[in-house]
Amino acid sequence: MSAKINITVWNEYRHEKQEGHLADLVRQAYPQGIHGAIAGHLRAADIEVRCATLDEPEHGLPDEVLNNTDVLIWWGHIAHAAVSDELVDKIQKRILSGMGLIVLHSGHFSKIFKRMTGTSCSLLWREVGEKERIWTIEPSHPIARGVPSSFVIPHTEMYGERFDIPQDGRIIFMSWYEGGNVFRSGVTFERGHGKVFYFAPGHETFPIFHDPTIIRIIGNAVRWAAPAEYIEISCPNSPALETVYSTDPTGKK
Amino acid sequence: MSAKINITVWNEYRHEKQEGHLADLVRQAYPQGIHGAIAGHLRAADIEVRCATLDEPEHGLPDEVLNNTDVLIWWGHIAHAAVSDELVDKIQKRILSGMGLIVLHSGHFSKIFKRMTGTSCSLLWREVGEKERIWTIEPSHPIARGVPSSFVIPHTEMYGERFDIPQDGRIIFMSWYEGGNVFRSGVTFERGHGKVFYFAPGHETFPIFHDPTIIRIIGNAVRWAAPAEYIEISCPNSPALETVYSTDPTGKK
Amino acid sequence: MSAKINITVWNEYRHEKQEGHLADLVRQAYPQGIHGAIAGHLRAADIEVRCATLDEPEHGLPDEVLNNTDVLIWWGHIAHAAVSDELVDKIQKRILSGMGLIVLHSGHFSKIFKRMTGTSCSLLWREVGEKERIWTIEPSHPIARGVPSSFVIPHTEMYGERFDIPQDGRIIFMSWYEGGNVFRSGVTFERGHGKVFYFAPGHETFPIFHDPTIIRIIGNAVRWAAPAEYIEISCPNSPALETVYSTDPTGKK
Amino acid sequence: MSAKINITVWNEYRHEKQEGHLADLVRQAYPQGIHGAIAGHLRAADIEVRCATLDEPEHGLPDEVLNNTDVLIWWGHIAHAAVSDELVDKIQKRILSGMGLIVLHSGHFSKIFKRMTGTSCSLLWREVGEKERIWTIEPSHPIARGVPSSFVIPHTEMYGERFDIPQDGRIIFMSWYEGGNVFRSGVTFERGHGKVFYFAPGHETFPIFHDPTIIRIIGNAVRWAAPAEYIEISCPNSPALETVYSTDPTGKK
Repeated sequence: MSAKINITVWNEYRHEKQEGHLADLVRQAYPQGIHGAIAGHLRAADIEVRCATLDEPEHGLPDEVLNNTDVLIWWGHIAHAAVSDELVDKIQKRILSGMGLIVLHSGHFSKIFKRMTGTSCSLLWREVGEKERIWTIEPSHPIARGVPSSFVIPHTEMYGERFDIPQDGRIIFMSWYEGGNVFRSGVTFERGHGKVFYFAPGHETFPIFHDPTIIRIIGNAVRWAAPAEYIEISCPNSPALETVYSTDPTGKK
Repeated sequence: MSAKINITVWNEYRHEKQEGHLADLVRQAYPQGIHGAIAGHLRAADIEVRCATLDEPEHGLPDEVLNNTDVLIWWGHIAHAAVSDELVDKIQKRILSGMGLIVLHSGHFSKIFKRMTGTSCSLLWREVGEKERIWTIEPSHPIARGVPSSFVIPHTEMYGERFDIPQDGRIIFMSWYEGGNVFRSGVTFERGHGKVFYFAPGHETFPIFHDPTIIRIIGNAVRWAAPAEYIEISCPNSPALETVYSTDPTGKK
Repeated sequence: MSAKINITVWNEYRHEKQEGHLADLVRQAYPQGIHGAIAGHLRAADIEVRCATLDEPEHGLPDEVLNNTDVLIWWGHIAHAAVSDELVDKIQKRILSGMGLIVLHSGHFSKIFKRMTGTSCSLLWREVGEKERIWTIEPSHPIARGVPSSFVIPHTEMYGERFDIPQDGRIIFMSWYEGGNVFRSGVTFERGHGKVFYFAPGHETFPIFHDPTIIRIIGNAVRWAAPAEYIEISCPNSPALETVYSTDPTGKK
Repeated sequence: MSAKINITVWNEYRHEKQEGHLADLVRQAYPQGIHGAIAGHLRAADIEVRCATLDEPEHGLPDEVLNNTDVLIWWGHIAHAAVSDELVDKIQKRILSGMGLIVLHSGHFSKIFKRMTGTSCSLLWREVGEKERIWTIEPSHPIARGVPSSFVIPHTEMYGERFDIPQDGRIIFMSWYEGGNVFRSGVTFERGHGKVFYFAPGHETFPIFHDPTIIRIIGNAVRWAAPAEYIEISCPNSPALETVYSTDPTGKK
């Protein structure tokens, strides 16, 4: 692994290319695409940023890219089904051997997040542009470094409980919504040797990915999720380490 | 749900139909197939038992069977890949809405168990017929009811750590092997509204599924995993429950 | 254990005996004391209810009472420090061997809850009589049986995050408060062979313990926490179960 | 916090001062005391080491020492009860605000470890000098850095399951014993803002604390448990952050 953390910001990148008023709003909020915005904000001395999108060959993640990615950031919304199962298999394998994964907002329904959790990742949702207040539940966690005890997103899409995720999801942030809902909006998992962070804030028409606190959290998560080393997962036949005195009566071996 | 627990014992049922010395040993240990042995031992006043096998139409699990199964017991070994992804999707969905799943021994590598865990489920293994001692870690858990603090399986296949499973796997049993290994051999998970139990003991040529303690544990697990009710998982748009005063400046909605 | 679940409702019972306007409000909400109200609501065919209060001899929990209690319900607020450490030791020991514990509202700061968690159990709080909306996070958990997906307490004391509890607290309920806070308001723990449920709603001047949904939850928790059996915890010298070939070179033994 | 990690190695230091054959063996294994041995092995460019023992004033941990300790290492065996409850209160408070705690071997029964876990921490034990094989369960955890997948302690005291600890204990190491037992021998907890590591190997008459792999693990644990910052835990009254429209009908406030 290089001295820098190699991250790849993956964006479905379909909203931005559609026609109509909604797509205009997306382009207005994110002129370089959502990936472009996030990538621009994350560039730093210790982070090497690359982008990849769905409609590129191999969805922008051929082996030479994936195998040089330390942390993969994932945004998807309207085209989850278009991601090939073969790529999901490869991403999962790389996560299990150490690569970090950061899943943003509507990525809760991506194939890769559902693959890593084993659950449906369903939730309640509502798009009325209401206020969200995010609470920092674990202020001493690396992902929360420098984040206030609570902060506001003035207009957001509501994501509410029950969020169908495994019980070992460690809650770093929880959200309050004006309309009466609550949500585990920042949750970590460890699977194999890899770290996964799901972070709910962020939306295609609200400028949430330009909010400095949101960017700080994603940057913290990148540094938290970057592996110190990669460990290949295998399932080897393993000779006895201590003397075996029992005998197998079937004579099979 | 009926007053009885409807269980389906699923067996790959390939070993039993092969030719050669190994297959003879399997047939000798399990003349009615592994599913037949387990089904026979589990029949009880409160349990209605059905069997299903890989080579039946729809792998023996058409909708009318799956949707009337409260607890699915899974044995597979040499043909995991032959199970269709479509069926795995259906089983996962039913588990998330409440159905119990009990995965036995080499089923650790089944598509459905890897789907539910999100991990590789890899481990160390060795087949020399050595002695295994199983320790009861949670004697007050329903799955351990009536099980001694430790008990012996005289000849077994070793399954050893590191076992690649999620960290919320609750350890009910741990195993000691003569050859120097240890293993989390009885582990529970909850995913969606369903309960999952992985139990390592059991092998195609050793008569482990005739051991009364092993059968007691599987029977306990059936009663533990049977749902009190089924809850459909959905992801609905949800109107505000409290007044929303913020306005969406984009005019999107 | 008898066929019935023997519960003891413990109340500090100091508020009710004070003078002044605040105490008048408490007496108005709970003419028989908070313990009397809860006890009255929980009496059922399968539950045998007893009460105990701080100022009785041995705080109302002599050995013959404690050792016949299957589930202990705990309310305290202004006199946590008056509970003897010796009694806390005894209660902890009984919980570890199987007794259930249900801690209500301001009991978060009781000696026994802090003892069982190992944490400070601190939180944010505010008493302005605001609205609380409680979300059911685990609808298939026994404690949530028959509880709607969300419900309202019209006037409550706010308890907000960060709640300093261990990370294995399983979240059954989460609360939304009008004033902008969120809280893990119904959380379970298992310690030794005993089950613990912390439930935040309830207050000395609001009639929350007369709310049928609140009472249903506490009743569900009683049935969930009642042990199937008691298992004494000991730390025995344990002879080798397998042959030890190594020798101790120090000659100590 | 200084650039260095300030650690304090606390030793009961009673065995070493007793008379008789057993005490001779202890002195032979640890001529400078157990604390002296551990302190000597841990001294490094990034670690500042201090020692403290039970029979010093304030058990060697007056406020100016405790409040300048980033990671406390704890060894105790025959005099747990002699540690004052007042000191245990102070240590717990400092851990909850960020200090790390590493508990060694017979320290499982120390007041501070039982305080942090809320459980009895009981286990099975046997002193016949048998062989122990330690398995690394989480090779990618910082505590396991550079540790082989399994390694042997030739002569040890057996500590076996069931180990009465909370379920969120993350298993870093598991042990196999020649005499047939298994044990969660390296387990982490997080409580408040502090990290806790329990590590079973180590004994007063076996030279286990001179084993380079054991010392590497303890050193790794020191670096893992050292806090990035301290966060005081408080329980403040917290004014509403959003407008409260409900009114309190009791007129209490």
